[in-house]
Amino acid sequence: MTTADCRLEHDFLGEREIPNQAYYGIQTLRALENFAITGIPLSSEPLFVRALAFVKKAAALANHELGVLPADIAQGIAAACDRVAAGEFNDHFPTDMIQGGAGTSVNMNANEVIANVALEIMGHQKGEYQFCHPNNHVNCSQSTNDAYPTAFRIALSLKLVSYSEGLGELAEAFAAKGDEFHDVLKMGRTQLQDAVPMSMGDEFRAFATNLREELSRIEDSRRLISEINMGATAIGTGVNAPNGYAELVTRHLSAISGLELLLAGDLFEATYDTGAYVQLSGVLKRTAVKLSKICNDLRLLSSGPRCGFNEINLPAQQPGSSIMPGKVNPVIPEVVNQTAYYVIGADLTVTMAAEAGQLQLNVMEPVISFALFTSISYMSNACRTLREKCVVGITANREHAAELVYGSVGIVTQLNPLLGYEASASIAKEALKTGKSVHDIAVTERGLLTQEKWDEIFTFENLIRPDFIQ
Amino acid sequence: MTTADCRLEHDFLGEREIPNQAYYGIQTLRALENFAITGIPLSSEPLFVRALAFVKKAAALANHELGVLPADIAQGIAAACDRVAAGEFNDHFPTDMIQGGAGTSVNMNANEVIANVALEIMGHQKGEYQFCHPNNHVNCSQSTNDAYPTAFRIALSLKLVSYSEGLGELAEAFAAKGDEFHDVLKMGRTQLQDAVPMSMGDEFRAFATNLREELSRIEDSRRLISEINMGATAIGTGVNAPNGYAELVTRHLSAISGLELLLAGDLFEATYDTGAYVQLSGVLKRTAVKLSKICNDLRLLSSGPRCGFNEINLPAQQPGSSIMPGKVNPVIPEVVNQTAYYVIGADLTVTMAAEAGQLQLNVMEPVISFALFTSISYMSNACRTLREKCVVGITANREHAAELVYGSVGIVTQLNPLLGYEASASIAKEALKTGKSVHDIAVTERGLLTQEKWDEIFTFENLIRPDFIQ
Amino acid sequence: MTTADCRLEHDFLGEREIPNQAYYGIQTLRALENFAITGIPLSSEPLFVRALAFVKKAAALANHELGVLPADIAQGIAAACDRVAAGEFNDHFPTDMIQGGAGTSVNMNANEVIANVALEIMGHQKGEYQFCHPNNHVNCSQSTNDAYPTAFRIALSLKLVSYSEGLGELAEAFAAKGDEFHDVLKMGRTQLQDAVPMSMGDEFRAFATNLREELSRIEDSRRLISEINMGATAIGTGVNAPNGYAELVTRHLSAISGLELLLAGDLFEATYDTGAYVQLSGVLKRTAVKLSKICNDLRLLSSGPRCGFNEINLPAQQPGSSIMPGKVNPVIPEVVNQTAYYVIGADLTVTMAAEAGQLQLNVMEPVISFALFTSISYMSNACRTLREKCVVGITANREHAAELVYGSVGIVTQLNPLLGYEASASIAKEALKTGKSVHDIAVTERGLLTQEKWDEIFTFENLIRPDFIQ
Amino acid sequence: MTTADCRLEHDFLGEREIPNQAYYGIQTLRALENFAITGIPLSSEPLFVRALAFVKKAAALANHELGVLPADIAQGIAAACDRVAAGEFNDHFPTDMIQGGAGTSVNMNANEVIANVALEIMGHQKGEYQFCHPNNHVNCSQSTNDAYPTAFRIALSLKLVSYSEGLGELAEAFAAKGDEFHDVLKMGRTQLQDAVPMSMGDEFRAFATNLREELSRIEDSRRLISEINMGATAIGTGVNAPNGYAELVTRHLSAISGLELLLAGDLFEATYDTGAYVQLSGVLKRTAVKLSKICNDLRLLSSGPRCGFNEINLPAQQPGSSIMPGKVNPVIPEVVNQTAYYVIGADLTVTMAAEAGQLQLNVMEPVISFALFTSISYMSNACRTLREKCVVGITANREHAAELVYGSVGIVTQLNPLLGYEASASIAKEALKTGKSVHDIAVTERGLLTQEKWDEIFTFENLIRPDFIQ
Repeated sequence: MTTADCRLEHDFLGEREIPNQAYYGIQTLRALENFAITGIPLSSEPLFVRALAFVKKAAALANHELGVLPADIAQGIAAACDRVAAGEFNDHFPTDMIQGGAGTSVNMNANEVIANVALEIMGHQKGEYQFCHPNNHVNCSQSTNDAYPTAFRIALSLKLVSYSEGLGELAEAFAAKGDEFHDVLKMGRTQLQDAVPMSMGDEFRAFATNLREELSRIEDSRRLISEINMGATAIGTGVNAPNGYAELVTRHLSAISGLELLLAGDLFEATYDTGAYVQLSGVLKRTAVKLSKICNDLRLLSSGPRCGFNEINLPAQQPGSSIMPGKVNPVIPEVVNQTAYYVIGADLTVTMAAEAGQLQLNVMEPVISFALFTSISYMSNACRTLREKCVVGITANREHAAELVYGSVGIVTQLNPLLGYEASASIAKEALKTGKSVHDIAVTERGLLTQEKWDEIFTFENLIRPDFIQ
Repeated sequence: MTTADCRLEHDFLGEREIPNQAYYGIQTLRALENFAITGIPLSSEPLFVRALAFVKKAAALANHELGVLPADIAQGIAAACDRVAAGEFNDHFPTDMIQGGAGTSVNMNANEVIANVALEIMGHQKGEYQFCHPNNHVNCSQSTNDAYPTAFRIALSLKLVSYSEGLGELAEAFAAKGDEFHDVLKMGRTQLQDAVPMSMGDEFRAFATNLREELSRIEDSRRLISEINMGATAIGTGVNAPNGYAELVTRHLSAISGLELLLAGDLFEATYDTGAYVQLSGVLKRTAVKLSKICNDLRLLSSGPRCGFNEINLPAQQPGSSIMPGKVNPVIPEVVNQTAYYVIGADLTVTMAAEAGQLQLNVMEPVISFALFTSISYMSNACRTLREKCVVGITANREHAAELVYGSVGIVTQLNPLLGYEASASIAKEALKTGKSVHDIAVTERGLLTQEKWDEIFTFENLIRPDFIQ
Repeated sequence: MTTADCRLEHDFLGEREIPNQAYYGIQTLRALENFAITGIPLSSEPLFVRALAFVKKAAALANHELGVLPADIAQGIAAACDRVAAGEFNDHFPTDMIQGGAGTSVNMNANEVIANVALEIMGHQKGEYQFCHPNNHVNCSQSTNDAYPTAFRIALSLKLVSYSEGLGELAEAFAAKGDEFHDVLKMGRTQLQDAVPMSMGDEFRAFATNLREELSRIEDSRRLISEINMGATAIGTGVNAPNGYAELVTRHLSAISGLELLLAGDLFEATYDTGAYVQLSGVLKRTAVKLSKICNDLRLLSSGPRCGFNEINLPAQQPGSSIMPGKVNPVIPEVVNQTAYYVIGADLTVTMAAEAGQLQLNVMEPVISFALFTSISYMSNACRTLREKCVVGITANREHAAELVYGSVGIVTQLNPLLGYEASASIAKEALKTGKSVHDIAVTERGLLTQEKWDEIFTFENLIRPDFIQ
Repeated sequence: MTTADCRLEHDFLGEREIPNQAYYGIQTLRALENFAITGIPLSSEPLFVRALAFVKKAAALANHELGVLPADIAQGIAAACDRVAAGEFNDHFPTDMIQGGAGTSVNMNANEVIANVALEIMGHQKGEYQFCHPNNHVNCSQSTNDAYPTAFRIALSLKLVSYSEGLGELAEAFAAKGDEFHDVLKMGRTQLQDAVPMSMGDEFRAFATNLREELSRIEDSRRLISEINMGATAIGTGVNAPNGYAELVTRHLSAISGLELLLAGDLFEATYDTGAYVQLSGVLKRTAVKLSKICNDLRLLSSGPRCGFNEINLPAQQPGSSIMPGKVNPVIPEVVNQTAYYVIGADLTVTMAAEAGQLQLNVMEPVISFALFTSISYMSNACRTLREKCVVGITANREHAAELVYGSVGIVTQLNPLLGYEASASIAKEALKTGKSVHDIAVTERGLLTQEKWDEIFTFENLIRPDFIQ
């Protein structure tokens, strides 16, 4: 690149050439050179870019109203923020998702891009920072330490909305299957051992219940992350911010983002605290644990086809083997399991980063953002994939499932109220030893109950919702 | 032991001799033989024993009212439960805290002890189970799969009360120190680098804020674990429980325990779900992360005495070295850090156990209970220790802390609104290069502001709550 | 306790009364008061007490030879160490397993007990430290920072010997079962779907192979932890230790402990490094992961009895349910799974503690020792339990396992070399759709191979070790 | 896309159109549709693509030599593999890094691309699989279950070579700084409290020692992952592979890859075992823990500049703040810390995935590969960044560091051998109380030693390598 295509920028450490077409500036350039870890740029999370623009716009408006930013500059910044928020300049956010500096590079990346977009809007050239300066104007009344976490929280909150929808749809898909399978009799199993009969509908509705509970937990998390620290500036004292700024910028930001944001009561604590991230990560982990358990169940219930449980069929999505003809594997639950392991690992990353905060700031927030953004994205993808590619297409092997019940020893439990635990245990013992059926031993051989009583007890309805028949 | 001192008991698998003085029976004996992993008995958690007695009493009352348990047996069981709940028979709960069987051994340990205590109350001998049987009577209308998790949840809820109190007291101790230190000027630090001045009072009050937030999270957890599945019996169908039992036993149990317990809406899900444990464990972890961060800060702030930050003094609790005379170490924060690492590790144990649940039951609940009970105990101890042995005795090195502020370069930030970022940066640069003070460069050498303006800006009040002085 | 039963001791911080019968002294008393976290005393790990005595004896011998400790005191200490090592004074090691102070309390507990035992051996009273002083004599030429980790490492190394033996015996038990089941035909499964036939002997021998590999990993770990830093004293400079001491005490310690100990080449690094613990913890975790996988398999293979795989029977150890008659559960694998989750959680504790080391020392070693000692103990118990209570009693359901094979679709893979993947896939597809057997479709209906060829391919020997038959 | 630009392909599940320019085929297309989780394609790890080509070439050669693959097809495949290994077709490996199916999609992606490249080399059109078929020819004698893990292991082994080099260079950079700082006197610190003096050279050399040890651990890991299971095919029986194939293909593969590969002794175990990955992940985690500790130290030692330790200066890489002029932060160590937290989290992902293996296969290998590849990449980047951007530019504040030593109380320890612990402790006590120096109290006030003796003890040489002066 020849110098003609470049402009000169300088900062505290010296001068550097910046390609003219770049909207970012010298500090972003340094960040690019300093941080080459993941190769995954900030622009991979467009909601973060968007949220940064929201923050900068709200600050510009508040600063203008409080008399510390001239009208033309404020308007230029606000207009630039609208364009950045719309995604027009995503390519100019190349900073690596993991960086040192507690987000300073991300904040400066936003400051620089917005300043240069504003400059052009205002009729100037990129780099003519005397008219609109990344630090003095775009970052006015802010520090990385309040602007960065606030933008992060807004991005998370927005991202959780669509994640929550996808998770809810998955829960409803399970519920619909539950209704479809309401009259499928099957063996309930505890500890992988035959237990007592149940309806397959209840099994699938329980999956739905299990996941629906997560929606409230996600809402809890959104409430916690809606607490922001704008106006804290560097450490919570609010140095360099005009009086009344904190409350005003929070109001603007709520309006711009459409979120109910709350100003933290203790700005010192809010500036370093990562508790809300830990809590959110814990919620994601909890959902991952549940999804993994459900997928384990789907794989167990579809095991076979001939040498396993074989109670349900998962829709075939691809040939299961490069060598075994006809093999179809539960590939969708498998990929969801793996996603869950990623999320559980990422929760540990968040935990370690949170614990590593020191004194007035937690410098490890970038890796927290990397972990949370990827976790939410992957979980969203996993929920959609599981619903579309698996759950909606599950079918039940009704006859086989019912046969297993009537051939089982576990149904002897239904006789407890009538015969008592010890007599029932004796039947079970003989059944296990001889291979005979419970019916044959109880009714035919031992005459412990009549066929009529048997039939009363062993109706489908009484098996899945037992009356207490003595 | 001679046979004369023993009674014979039998179960599904055969006969065994039980020492006459033992209130437990054959299934507890088998558990003792089968599970010798931690050496830590159930009795180490008296609240769990107490909660089991609550469950068994509530079940006896409900069973009697519903006509499936005779009055004398129900009364005998209830009276026995009262004595067990009072801790009289804790020694008869030797089952290892980690066992296989999804808690069956714990449930049977309780059933057996209560049956034998009831037998004696009723004027019979231990082991005369025809009059009061562990399974048929004490366990009537129950399965391990509802009785065990319900007792576990009650024990957790009770345990959290005192934990929460201790944590709250610790938070208040920090708040009191915050008030005591309200007029101590000190350097705020971000990324371990000098940032801007603040009051030490704000630093300690932020610790209080940080921990107070945990109290609401604990309450959230208590709400989630107050959902129980009594009446689900084996897998949620309620097989072997009389109609109306689930609601009735829940009411009794609420009254007996003094807790607001809720019957789960989906008993199938509630019987296997461990989400509430994962959430509670996550809350404990979050608090552990915060405590660890705070203890890291206390250790940093007291580092020295001559080659470190030396802003505060922790009370000396023991000689710090077997070789270095006069050395005093921050041993109390150190032990709290280590407790936090334990709790974070235990959270992973809970996570793995929760993920391992299969189909209609999570068989791994015992290790979850081990992890949660020890975590809450250790955290309670850590909170009390930190408060009593450390926080209340912390003193501030006022003069040294203030000297650091005025000798710092970081105070240049206060001049930003007046001089702008670039002029301030130039002062900072020279101060760093030459070792001169900001005052000397800004006022004396460069004459950028008058001594009067300097004095206005650098009052204690303006440093810790800066007005926006231009 | 009246003062008459007590002696006065003093340290850097003041005077305290010590019960006369206690062999420990004032610093142990302070530790008891300061650290009440787990309630689990040092004496719960007798090998650690033993190793501390080894270290103190070796130091006394070396100190005497180098002329810094008089013969009578050295002899008194050595004799006292022998008695402490033999376990006579375990009750006098009450220090909590988790403490602050980087092990100073543990080191001083040992110094005090050994000094007082030595005093009595030398004809003095407890507490007459002018004749044998905990710091000046017992701790001579040492610091906690070399004595503590060295004793810890020796204790670990000794503990690993018996753990390794138990693990090896478990592996051999699996191997023996593998031999016993060498002629049992069964379906191999991948992704829980029927794959191709195999011998159950190969399945169990693979368990043995899997665990045998761990023995080498344990040996690797023992090599790493055999590197000690005696003579480093406080931070590695060796201040306060006479010239030649480091090498000499290492030689003595090797002889006394019977271990091949190595003096670290870089004493600064060796004094703070916890890498060997992280590596050992990783090895324990790896074995836990493998054991958990194996136990998952045992539970799957024994699932049923009528609605599961039912290929093997685990020995019944206890009734499986308080409500379901005849139910027998895989309680032993279950308790091993849970032990594994504990160990995996403890590995995280070790990781966090290792990462938290700062500058010249890692102060978090006590919680590392707690995590490692409990992990090794629990794993040892789990290995013995799994072998004795489960593996040796496993039986195979030969007929059922073989029936599953011949009824499966998976056997079509054996026809690939003869018929090609696409023809085989077509057979599989029809079998799955119609429920017919592979034999019926391939031989009877389609005539793709003769019955003779079929018989050649589907011999037991060719199924478990297929020749390439075209 | 019009049908004219497409070719029709079919598999077990039906027909699909494939873009003509795509070298992959129908199964890769299905994988693309089924797995959209991370958005990170297989091609992001070119070594994996390369290793897959190595495996396919070795198989083709062995198959031809054993007479099961015609010469022309074998040659076509081998030539195609050479081009794929050279990276020419990386863009045709779009499969998501996390997929279900145990790697089948990855294996088929390779089979399809290689088949189509071979077809063109052989003068045919893409898709004319009758001349060279992905399953029948490219995958001949293989299953995903041996080909996939073998390629994965080869890729890991190759990747570890450059990682290990980078880590070694970092260690040497620390060693060079250690030599540079050999004559810098500084205070050693334990538990963040002043301990005894040392040379800064020893501190930095210890960092080097600490990291050098990792190189052997990496080599251990490479040895373990060099064990492969080619010839096991589906589960270890070797079904569908000709006699002698396993050994022959292993020999070819060693030659092609330049690695010393070993055929596993137990192919059943080797097909499902993930122990080598767990071990490797543990090694990566251990190094991450060490790097994180070192970076914590660098940040502590450079804390200040005026209110911290300030013993060293890290090279300034970017302005440290958007608000605080002159602030420079330790951004490089910070990004390394965060990388470490990622790696520690990824180790948990590996652990969970390894534990989840069932029966004859571990289906969770793809997420293991994702975790390991990203961990190694990020760690490599972190090592290079830390060396280039930080370590090589570190400077020492010699005077300040030495002043801290002589002003400290900790130097009193040097007087222990001469004055005894108690007299030294008394000096320390007074120094701490009064603020006086050790020298003033010991020499001037108390006259406990002469100035000459003092000078003898407190030479630089005796402080950093103390003689035992009495």
